[in-house]
Amino acid sequence: MAEAKVLSGAGLRGQIAGQTSLSTVGKEGAGLTYRGYDVRELAAEALFEEVAYLLFYGELPNREQLAAYKKTLQELRDLPQALKDVLERIPKEAHPMDVMRTGTSMLGNLEPEQSFADQQAVANRLLAVFPAIMTYWYRFSHEGVRINCVSDEETLAGHFLALLHGEKPSELHVKVMNVSLILYAEHEFNASTFTSRVCASTLSDLYSCVTGAIGSLRGPLHGGANEAAMEMIAQWHSPQEAVEGILGMLERKDKIMGFGHAIYRDSDPRNEVIKVWSKKLADEVGDTVLYPVSEAVDKTMWEQKALFPNADFYHASAYHFMGIPTKLFTPIFVCSRVTGWTSHVFEQRAHNRIIRPSAQYIGVELRRYVPIAQR
Amino acid sequence: MAEAKVLSGAGLRGQIAGQTSLSTVGKEGAGLTYRGYDVRELAAEALFEEVAYLLFYGELPNREQLAAYKKTLQELRDLPQALKDVLERIPKEAHPMDVMRTGTSMLGNLEPEQSFADQQAVANRLLAVFPAIMTYWYRFSHEGVRINCVSDEETLAGHFLALLHGEKPSELHVKVMNVSLILYAEHEFNASTFTSRVCASTLSDLYSCVTGAIGSLRGPLHGGANEAAMEMIAQWHSPQEAVEGILGMLERKDKIMGFGHAIYRDSDPRNEVIKVWSKKLADEVGDTVLYPVSEAVDKTMWEQKALFPNADFYHASAYHFMGIPTKLFTPIFVCSRVTGWTSHVFEQRAHNRIIRPSAQYIGVELRRYVPIAQR
Repeated sequence: MAEAKVLSGAGLRGQIAGQTSLSTVGKEGAGLTYRGYDVRELAAEALFEEVAYLLFYGELPNREQLAAYKKTLQELRDLPQALKDVLERIPKEAHPMDVMRTGTSMLGNLEPEQSFADQQAVANRLLAVFPAIMTYWYRFSHEGVRINCVSDEETLAGHFLALLHGEKPSELHVKVMNVSLILYAEHEFNASTFTSRVCASTLSDLYSCVTGAIGSLRGPLHGGANEAAMEMIAQWHSPQEAVEGILGMLERKDKIMGFGHAIYRDSDPRNEVIKVWSKKLADEVGDTVLYPVSEAVDKTMWEQKALFPNADFYHASAYHFMGIPTKLFTPIFVCSRVTGWTSHVFEQRAHNRIIRPSAQYIGVELRRYVPIAQR
Repeated sequence: MAEAKVLSGAGLRGQIAGQTSLSTVGKEGAGLTYRGYDVRELAAEALFEEVAYLLFYGELPNREQLAAYKKTLQELRDLPQALKDVLERIPKEAHPMDVMRTGTSMLGNLEPEQSFADQQAVANRLLAVFPAIMTYWYRFSHEGVRINCVSDEETLAGHFLALLHGEKPSELHVKVMNVSLILYAEHEFNASTFTSRVCASTLSDLYSCVTGAIGSLRGPLHGGANEAAMEMIAQWHSPQEAVEGILGMLERKDKIMGFGHAIYRDSDPRNEVIKVWSKKLADEVGDTVLYPVSEAVDKTMWEQKALFPNADFYHASAYHFMGIPTKLFTPIFVCSRVTGWTSHVFEQRAHNRIIRPSAQYIGVELRRYVPIAQR
């Protein structure tokens, strides 16, 4: 075997492991683009379904295309009974990401991807069905209710809120959820997306790729930051308390979630967007604590550590103002990012080589087996 | 952001992506070692449980340690009722690897890894429970039988065969299954193991890591080779037919599974081991077709393409002689490789940095959003 090359960066940081046409992250002049469009423009103007279409097909849809695509997704929302049976057997105490992972995996048994020609249909199905997987389990295990998994909401954003709350959501809430789904849709070779590409490189099925990606997103170093941020800010009752709390945490070198980023250096372009919407929601609900507390944390982190809030930080308060239980924050991420994951799988499949790196061996040298009687 | 480095090998081939003390693959003088021991010696002398212990703890167990470890595993074999309920809802037509993936994911809801201090207990549980997950589903969906998931077989090899066939397995079959589990236990940074390490690098839980790894192993470029080899050899009724068949396949440039290897250049050290056992099984059952066909394929591939059989090729006939349905070949791989996967997760956790490479962007340049009315 030829001598393997030792990569300079641990964790493959800064190493190019493949090609993509889907997004750029941290490029000068445009913090985050999806197929060339600035995510801030998309969040301001587009529907999440438009963005999903853009990621899948490469171009924004026209009116007819968008209407057809929305209709396609609307018709795929319901859960098969066997999947409901499985969700009913998952205890209330389970980690909601384990529920998403299991729901995805189970659906792969019931509606397998028969060939790669079905890949877009499977991606659409997952996109359409995730709100129901999450809320069916949540409301059955927490409220004892077997919800109807279809709604007459036009959009995925509205559909999710309708299933969760059992009532028609406000226009503002639908708008913010739509923005949030756009912001989280795609982010290049992050760990969960890379997981889905490694899996795809063995030519495995799409459910396996997404199941694996959910498992990686579950990790606290990856998807759990908005939940951790919520738990942190919820403990303080005034900006002054928050400042004191943060200073204490910094002194104790506690990890503070929702700040800084592996790739962005000066700011996370998604933050400015969600921050504005969080403020609007705070005003709507008449909040005088959580938003001011968030701002105080933001200001203190900048003054003390020159760290900026990332996409997750103001998402915490925004989701909270919409009545979303904290434990469902990361599953919402799944509902959005599945567009990015599956688009990356399509790319990997189109130009595949199995992803199989080497390891540097640091273990014991060759030794002879010792029979058990002599140990 | 600093300029990212473009890796020379597609699919990270030959690139070192981390360190391991677990195994060497393709090193001169020892084709495959587990913690310094030649896999051929382990397969000749050891029990699979000894090898699992070696991978987990770094040293071979003494008699007391091995007895205690076997007892630990024996007591963890049964399935919780909720998991049985899930398996009963998976149709007969499902891909057995989807069943393994779903069973693992479901167990993560029922018996979550509460902290990394539990990691060895979770790894033991998965190792002990996989034979039952596979066979409970298989026999319920194919035979309508709800099997008892415990057996009085001492070893995992015997336990699996007992659950599958519903009777005490022969000594020879237990021996061969034991050898097979040893041969498949660990293989450095292959795609499924790398999947588990990427997942682990987000500090996700062990069930997520193993669920992801199963999804990658499912891919036909990775774990499915012994099944594909079986399907190929089963179509020929004599060595002569096999030679003609192979020559035709080579002429049509069909992919021939079970030959060659991404890392090994001259031979796969696992092949010489399983080939001998496949022959013994052939003699036992009085086979005059499948083994001679396998040998004819082997010889023809060497003469025509200088390609050697890898671990998977003679596994096909060996498993077949033991009455194992072809569709369960890759799930047996899971029962074995879970030791390698989880050992790699422990390594990753002990010296972690999130695995987050970069991508080379080859998409469209920055462009302005066009309102839908103008598209």
